[in-house]
Amino acid sequence: MGLECIQFCGSPGGEVVQKTFVHPELAVDEVAVKVTHSGLCGTDLHYVTTDMVLGHEAIGVVHSIGSDVSSVKVGDRVGWGYPNWTCGKCEWCLRGEDNYCPNWKIYGMADLEQGSLSSLSVRKEQWLFKIPESMSSEDAAPLMCGGSTVWTPLVNHVKPYHRVGIVGIGGLGHLAIQFAAKMGVEVVVFSATESKRDEALRLGAKEFYATKDVDDYSTLGIIKPIDRLMICTSSKLNLALFYPLLNPQAMIFPLTASDGELTVPYFATVRNGLSISGTVIATRFMQKKALEFAARNGVHVIAEKFPMTLDGVNAAMARLKEGKMRYRAVLSWE
Amino acid sequence: MGLECIQFCGSPGGEVVQKTFVHPELAVDEVAVKVTHSGLCGTDLHYVTTDMVLGHEAIGVVHSIGSDVSSVKVGDRVGWGYPNWTCGKCEWCLRGEDNYCPNWKIYGMADLEQGSLSSLSVRKEQWLFKIPESMSSEDAAPLMCGGSTVWTPLVNHVKPYHRVGIVGIGGLGHLAIQFAAKMGVEVVVFSATESKRDEALRLGAKEFYATKDVDDYSTLGIIKPIDRLMICTSSKLNLALFYPLLNPQAMIFPLTASDGELTVPYFATVRNGLSISGTVIATRFMQKKALEFAARNGVHVIAEKFPMTLDGVNAAMARLKEGKMRYRAVLSWE
Repeated sequence: MGLECIQFCGSPGGEVVQKTFVHPELAVDEVAVKVTHSGLCGTDLHYVTTDMVLGHEAIGVVHSIGSDVSSVKVGDRVGWGYPNWTCGKCEWCLRGEDNYCPNWKIYGMADLEQGSLSSLSVRKEQWLFKIPESMSSEDAAPLMCGGSTVWTPLVNHVKPYHRVGIVGIGGLGHLAIQFAAKMGVEVVVFSATESKRDEALRLGAKEFYATKDVDDYSTLGIIKPIDRLMICTSSKLNLALFYPLLNPQAMIFPLTASDGELTVPYFATVRNGLSISGTVIATRFMQKKALEFAARNGVHVIAEKFPMTLDGVNAAMARLKEGKMRYRAVLSWE
Repeated sequence: MGLECIQFCGSPGGEVVQKTFVHPELAVDEVAVKVTHSGLCGTDLHYVTTDMVLGHEAIGVVHSIGSDVSSVKVGDRVGWGYPNWTCGKCEWCLRGEDNYCPNWKIYGMADLEQGSLSSLSVRKEQWLFKIPESMSSEDAAPLMCGGSTVWTPLVNHVKPYHRVGIVGIGGLGHLAIQFAAKMGVEVVVFSATESKRDEALRLGAKEFYATKDVDDYSTLGIIKPIDRLMICTSSKLNLALFYPLLNPQAMIFPLTASDGELTVPYFATVRNGLSISGTVIATRFMQKKALEFAARNGVHVIAEKFPMTLDGVNAAMARLKEGKMRYRAVLSWE
């Protein structure tokens, strides 16, 4: 009876349905986690028509552990994100780049009963992360995917003297502003309208520019060029508009999983040594460090809260779909 | 009389014309170089309609020096490439990235009397490079631009365990194959037809694939993925064709100054952590190191030779325009 749980699942018609499920007995390397909180991410919308448990920004408390588990114990507060399991044997695992393991099992592709919109999930020990004590579970949940996505390129490619542009204030953008500002760099925010100016500055931005209806960004009045540009919007942008604002060797990070094509000016990219760099979530090492950094420096999620009920899940999904979430949903059983 | 010279210049009608010119007396930091050899580069074609001395892959012998010059002396064999002068004061110069100096004077944009298709050119000491003794001037000339262009991303981004793809065997490609192979990495060449297979393998390629009329590159039979892809063709490619061949975190370097747009698949770029990275010629430090490496490891230019005469220049320009050069033109007074 201990491993029976409630789950909120996608369905072919795109309606979220509530189910009851009994997890089989734990394998030696598995951990049963009583979920308390879950963030909601754009990717979850992709899977509402799939018969699977939704959610992949989880926080919960360890309920029971398999016999080989040693890194967490019953009662620990833990979280997880997109990956369920990586092989530990491929070259990408060997080099610590386990977020590129070709054999991995991830949300939506495997282990469809392991989503975080549930009362209990059974996970491999390997991709569970202890949550720092000083961090609230509301703050922690969105760091398991959205937060780690913006953290990785900041750590890998931003130097303390860079000017970092953040395009779009939403689930990713409002965390990117905080992470970057708390690393001590100059943060420049681009948003469609003026409506989020005060919040952006409060979160740590030094400059804010509203870009709606602006055809030539060199008229925005930006004097010092940008070194790193994080594209945190889910809609496609005309990246060429930003080119007049970029320093030589600037890097552009498209962070959302958009379809279609990514297009930039050819000559200016070569001539100015610009890079467009994909980057996906975080390695396990980086996920740990993101949590530690956020706890130490007070990175806080701005979340709309929903109860972890069928109505709550549906309400959160609807608001996410409308693009109106400010800025991340967190569902909870509490 | 010593600074009188012959020059081959562009003209509004696009015809190369021969002129006589008398350089003014040397400034304290200037060097008069008696040109012996010049390479020819695609960029030179862009300037045939400009009233300027053509050519920017120069080798020559120091004829006379200004009073402050200390790094070269009369009789030294020296070369130069695209840049004439950088400011030494901007942040890009301070960090040694002088190939991004915003105040620089470069071929085609300033000092229009300093081209290398001439018998004598007056240059700033700053961007002159001594040519290693063991290197022929025919080998050296194309290294001043084409060679340094392929060298820079190889040094900055290729690790000894990478598989490096070279797309296109021409002025850049045939040097990229050699530089990469002599760094000890596995070189994989993509060319339109089979015609250059033997030469590619002789230059150091381990694998060779003809891609003309192939719609799906996953059918080429490539088993091990590519980590770095150098685009050495001057025509625009469908980069998406290469995506199935790339490792996670692969980098693509478009190396030629093409117009228009650079387009890649959005989702796969993000998901696989791929980068598209512009890169332009070399810093002064890197140019020196390219020459030293090429001399030490025997990187040799495959060149068609032309006399430095009006007929010779016109013949070389025509052949370059047809895209038939194998693989670089070198003009010489000797």
